[in-house]
Amino acid sequence: MMELPKKINVKEVGPRDGLQNESSRISTVDKVNWINRLSNSGLSYIEVTSFVHPKWIPQLSDSIQVAKSIDRKDGITYAALVPNRKGLEGALEANMDEISVFMSASETHNQKNINKSINETFPVLEEVVKVAKQENKTVRGYVSTVFGCPYEGEIAIEDVVYVSKRLFEMGIDELSLGDTIGVANPKQVDRVLREIRHQFPEQQIALHFHNTRGTALANCLAAMQLGFTTFDASLGGLGGCPYAQGASGNLATDDLIYMLDGMAIETNVQLDALLDAGRFIQDRLGKPLPSHQMQIDQRKKE
Amino acid sequence: MMELPKKINVKEVGPRDGLQNESSRISTVDKVNWINRLSNSGLSYIEVTSFVHPKWIPQLSDSIQVAKSIDRKDGITYAALVPNRKGLEGALEANMDEISVFMSASETHNQKNINKSINETFPVLEEVVKVAKQENKTVRGYVSTVFGCPYEGEIAIEDVVYVSKRLFEMGIDELSLGDTIGVANPKQVDRVLREIRHQFPEQQIALHFHNTRGTALANCLAAMQLGFTTFDASLGGLGGCPYAQGASGNLATDDLIYMLDGMAIETNVQLDALLDAGRFIQDRLGKPLPSHQMQIDQRKKE
Repeated sequence: MMELPKKINVKEVGPRDGLQNESSRISTVDKVNWINRLSNSGLSYIEVTSFVHPKWIPQLSDSIQVAKSIDRKDGITYAALVPNRKGLEGALEANMDEISVFMSASETHNQKNINKSINETFPVLEEVVKVAKQENKTVRGYVSTVFGCPYEGEIAIEDVVYVSKRLFEMGIDELSLGDTIGVANPKQVDRVLREIRHQFPEQQIALHFHNTRGTALANCLAAMQLGFTTFDASLGGLGGCPYAQGASGNLATDDLIYMLDGMAIETNVQLDALLDAGRFIQDRLGKPLPSHQMQIDQRKKE
Repeated sequence: MMELPKKINVKEVGPRDGLQNESSRISTVDKVNWINRLSNSGLSYIEVTSFVHPKWIPQLSDSIQVAKSIDRKDGITYAALVPNRKGLEGALEANMDEISVFMSASETHNQKNINKSINETFPVLEEVVKVAKQENKTVRGYVSTVFGCPYEGEIAIEDVVYVSKRLFEMGIDELSLGDTIGVANPKQVDRVLREIRHQFPEQQIALHFHNTRGTALANCLAAMQLGFTTFDASLGGLGGCPYAQGASGNLATDDLIYMLDGMAIETNVQLDALLDAGRFIQDRLGKPLPSHQMQIDQRKKE
């Protein structure tokens, strides 16, 4: 029989990674309402927002109000992404449970995304991690373009290990490996994660797949078969390309939960409650969300 | 390392299973032109049409003209679906290489779809298979609702084995097991196919997954890991629900080829040529096809 974990941690990144890629503006009240609905779906982790300069991501310019206004439920980790010390101040003011820092395994992508070389990025993140830990926060490190870069193509596993090691040395609690442009395939996931598992404990590794080419669930399956148990996802596939419906970005939380439920893998997330939250944000966005579950839900009404 | 087959047979069912689920009518000339393009993509198998009464599937009422007008390329098997002896006459007149018969593993679905009980269906198919074999045709048997039925829910593996055995006893050359409503998950695929492999040689088994819930590629992965090497697919995910974009029916050939190419699994199919054929039929349908590859292709032009 296929060997699979008994339990999977699903980390909801829609309010941050989803919304930051949507052109529609959602009001602060609606964001808060939506995150509260997510809190009621059984999720144990919600990335609430990003404390970046509004010049870069105007969609999240109300991060401090959102983070301060949501209802915090016991047992849920509320996280926020921060690019630097200034962002961290906001996250601390909002009393986030967890801080996420990010960088790329690709030199070119890091330069274009963060405006610094990989080596110039380390000290910035190092300071954030240090202060966050002093404030008793847990810290997550994102590494992007792990399975491919829009500028450099395939990324050497050594480059992924190099930045991952540095992040763990800084003191991060969890590493999230991202297929930023959604090019990974299960065989590559298997190959890369065997090396990652060799270098780091798999309990500290999350996978962040994008479904741009439809392979995200197959990639999750490959990762689960190696014993990896933590996956990032965005409800409804929120953040998918707005001008081509169905061309999703993030793996959809609801599609992942459907698959895991069918395999009797415990997640503690209730699909019905998740879809209820999905309908709420879909309604506010005024356009259908690209996930399969949301589209099936939509058809039921027609 | 993940154990996977070196070579996969991809069988294109779009001209039949795709078009029969599209409300738009495509002209005979356009169908012929499209199938000729498919023939130029490296595919070795194309299900060209279905010889059913036009009352049931008006979209395919020109089956005989289409089948007679396409260019036949050496090395490609041109197949057609037939429901009964009358349909077979059409397929023989058009000199198809392969005949496909079909039935359901679910009593209720068989009754609703074929208007006969499972046991009443056997003699009808038996006659078709017998005559087709006498005419030196190869025969494929489809079994639908293998992984779930819209009326009966999950289907016992014994019921799948029962109809499959009967079909092989009739003399079919290949059995295609269908996830008709797209509910299968990889663990279930693993469980069902271990039993199937125990009963029948896996070289004679094809898998026909639908991507309704986004799990089709993950299901292919599970099947490949058990050594199954033949998959049905429909270019662009053609035949997906027409009123909810992206809610695809059939697994998209182009998405499957993308994944297999990435894993260096040989298919002999050229993705570029496939997408060219996809653009052709998309243009004739006048609406975007739901596959990820076609949507990425579409975005490149915007």
